[in-house]
Amino acid sequence: MVPKWVCAGFVYLLLGLILNVAEFCNGGMTSGYQRPNNLSFDMPLDSDVFRVPPGYNAPQQVHITQGDYEGRGVIISWITPDEPGSNTVVYWAENTELKNCADGIVVTYKYFDYTSGFIHHCTIKDLEFDTKYYYEVGIGNTTRQFWFITPPKVGPDVPYTFGLIGDLGQTYDSNTTLTHYELNPAKGQALLFVGDLSYADDYPFHDNNRWDTWGRFIERNAAHQPWIWTAGNHEIDFAPAIGESIPFKPYTHRFFVPYEASESTSPLWYSIKRASAYIIVMSSYSAFGKYTPQYKWFTNKVTEVNRTETPWLIVLMHPPMYNSYVSHYMEGETMRVMYEPWFVEYKVDVVFAGHVHAYERSERVSNVAYNIINGLCTPVNNHSAPVYITIGDGGNQEGLSTAHSHTTQPTVKPALDMAFLTLRTGLMPTSVGIGIKMDMPLKLTHNGFTTDTGNHRKSPL
Amino acid sequence: MVPKWVCAGFVYLLLGLILNVAEFCNGGMTSGYQRPNNLSFDMPLDSDVFRVPPGYNAPQQVHITQGDYEGRGVIISWITPDEPGSNTVVYWAENTELKNCADGIVVTYKYFDYTSGFIHHCTIKDLEFDTKYYYEVGIGNTTRQFWFITPPKVGPDVPYTFGLIGDLGQTYDSNTTLTHYELNPAKGQALLFVGDLSYADDYPFHDNNRWDTWGRFIERNAAHQPWIWTAGNHEIDFAPAIGESIPFKPYTHRFFVPYEASESTSPLWYSIKRASAYIIVMSSYSAFGKYTPQYKWFTNKVTEVNRTETPWLIVLMHPPMYNSYVSHYMEGETMRVMYEPWFVEYKVDVVFAGHVHAYERSERVSNVAYNIINGLCTPVNNHSAPVYITIGDGGNQEGLSTAHSHTTQPTVKPALDMAFLTLRTGLMPTSVGIGIKMDMPLKLTHNGFTTDTGNHRKSPL
Repeated sequence: MVPKWVCAGFVYLLLGLILNVAEFCNGGMTSGYQRPNNLSFDMPLDSDVFRVPPGYNAPQQVHITQGDYEGRGVIISWITPDEPGSNTVVYWAENTELKNCADGIVVTYKYFDYTSGFIHHCTIKDLEFDTKYYYEVGIGNTTRQFWFITPPKVGPDVPYTFGLIGDLGQTYDSNTTLTHYELNPAKGQALLFVGDLSYADDYPFHDNNRWDTWGRFIERNAAHQPWIWTAGNHEIDFAPAIGESIPFKPYTHRFFVPYEASESTSPLWYSIKRASAYIIVMSSYSAFGKYTPQYKWFTNKVTEVNRTETPWLIVLMHPPMYNSYVSHYMEGETMRVMYEPWFVEYKVDVVFAGHVHAYERSERVSNVAYNIINGLCTPVNNHSAPVYITIGDGGNQEGLSTAHSHTTQPTVKPALDMAFLTLRTGLMPTSVGIGIKMDMPLKLTHNGFTTDTGNHRKSPL
Repeated sequence: MVPKWVCAGFVYLLLGLILNVAEFCNGGMTSGYQRPNNLSFDMPLDSDVFRVPPGYNAPQQVHITQGDYEGRGVIISWITPDEPGSNTVVYWAENTELKNCADGIVVTYKYFDYTSGFIHHCTIKDLEFDTKYYYEVGIGNTTRQFWFITPPKVGPDVPYTFGLIGDLGQTYDSNTTLTHYELNPAKGQALLFVGDLSYADDYPFHDNNRWDTWGRFIERNAAHQPWIWTAGNHEIDFAPAIGESIPFKPYTHRFFVPYEASESTSPLWYSIKRASAYIIVMSSYSAFGKYTPQYKWFTNKVTEVNRTETPWLIVLMHPPMYNSYVSHYMEGETMRVMYEPWFVEYKVDVVFAGHVHAYERSERVSNVAYNIINGLCTPVNNHSAPVYITIGDGGNQEGLSTAHSHTTQPTVKPALDMAFLTLRTGLMPTSVGIGIKMDMPLKLTHNGFTTDTGNHRKSPL
């Protein structure tokens, strides 16, 4: 049996995805941090990172995400604890005098004995590309000011770097992950989050105060760059024993996404364009069978992607479709059998997932030849197949996945807390590169020593 | 390759499931009807079977289903076209003077340019077992009277006969199916409906008037015996292009089921006990992955079934998990990989499905040994596995499924419109039979000639 997975156990992963035939990226060297292979504990409620901002009704848990289909919109979200306060966001481009206003909405929810604060969501649109904007929330009482930078105009020829985090939680390790992400010289410009946010559901009665601490914890980064959300199993918050049987209630109240811009009918699946990437977010915990809304939406969208505009086609989901760890082994099968043929036919470049608290990268393999009686069930090399990457160790309290299901698999125990995806499409001459996806070099660096470099030539689109 | 399916193309299927070791059932002979292998057309709106009952605001589309967990309750549903009218049901046991009243609720819905009538649902409870009841609806205006017979008390020792229909529609063939069911000497006492009811969604804008015609069409049977509902893909009615993006809207307004009695949180999956059977209804078009509400519910319920009380464990779903036809080939895989291990571990007796417009019966096989790289992906004999039976040709306008995916499969073209499932547990001495499910003889008869008899010994529970 040929091992089809590549596993490595180092601190930082720098993924350089490059469209240039000749030049591979170099993700650069990072720190010597090694995630300890033991359980980490949630930071206590009085931790510095959970501090409530001072001032009456001060906005807290400020975070942003993309607010339209192409990156000229931003959804700004924040929570006011004492009273609804103002829904207004004031924003202005750097080096301009003109201030703009936009009004949002406010929602609240109850969960068992918890009542949320006033959760504001305001979409600002028609921004200039590639521009730094400042914004203020909390108008009328305690205002707080932040900033973000819009992405370049969508097109094949724009470099962009995404960060990748999954299964973050709010442990001491989670904090280390976020610090690493902030300090890393790769400088992620937007973050692809592959599900499992706060782990509040690990607390008795899913203590939603731990959603609030998590919101305050991530603000230092998520207020300044869009976090692109994917729902994981820890977002379901299904607890009929305490009367809570509406799945995703806290998550969907707290984290708005621009699903309608991509003609989705649910915030749990949607797509965006950003720089040279078309990003499809899928929901493994919603209906996804044939004929379902998600299936219809996905199969329409994936056929519509204009690869001359967005040559990179990226899918995010929570549980991996390929996974060699004992942890959650085969859980992705139910989705793989439905969607792998589409991923291969439409040449998805890479599928990122979390769920398994480890790092793993597949070779380009597929199992689409399998049918129920033909005996062809071992994944085979397929140059049209995506690379599947698990990056599910953000640092939550459930610990690392280390054991593999198969003795043929490497036994290295990964401890990757986050990764970068750099789309250096700017290096590619458009006239040559359009429609031809050539190479996907991947480098893992640890203390400057390159330990795993994949170079998987892809078939022409 | 050993063919693992048994297909046969005859008019009637009489399934005798018997717990007695020595004595197999004989389903008896039925008519010589052979479903024509061509498209059938929907009956026109002015067909006799769609006739609106006379009288002002007369209740129409009367149908019943089980209304509690154990069969002492009935949900009575009907529609009044002109005004809400009374929510009350008057009911009484045969040979008694005492009349009882129960009050229900009324709901309405809009779908594109259609507005429903006033849809009444009234649950009557605490009925005597094995008793004929009369009931009246339309109190105050035009009343209509019907009757039903409650099942025997739940237990291992009570014979009971279920009818089985799927994918019915409202064609001339649909009408033939229903007539056959009514006239068949096997005398079904309750009907297990495996999804795809009206096919209204095949009409422009999902013309919901075709839900009403269907309701009037089935009333002649469904007002007198419970139809146990399973949602199929034709119940989704998802049409965002016309502003209709709430899945299952017409279905869930029109067909109530006792889901809360089995601690389900959705009417799309639930379970009931009836006579000697425990029946689990699953939804293939809802979320069913690990951690989802349906998964949690199912995995709890299946472990709780008391096989000394209900030795027969039956699962209903719409798309089959094993299917050798080209039509919908492999669609059931996404659900099979999640649920087959549970079906095998808990020794489900039989899984009924529709979706494929044909008849097909599996041998007791399983594919649970398969994992993503071990190469063991051909289903193997497994005495703990269920028998999978497709009975999806109720007669809808989409025609028969005839072609098989594999040349190793039989080429007989089935045309079964419905089936019977007879649980003759009364023949089994309780002291011997408890906990031991012995045999599952199946006989297909056509003009009195037995053409296919399976006799699959099952492992002890």
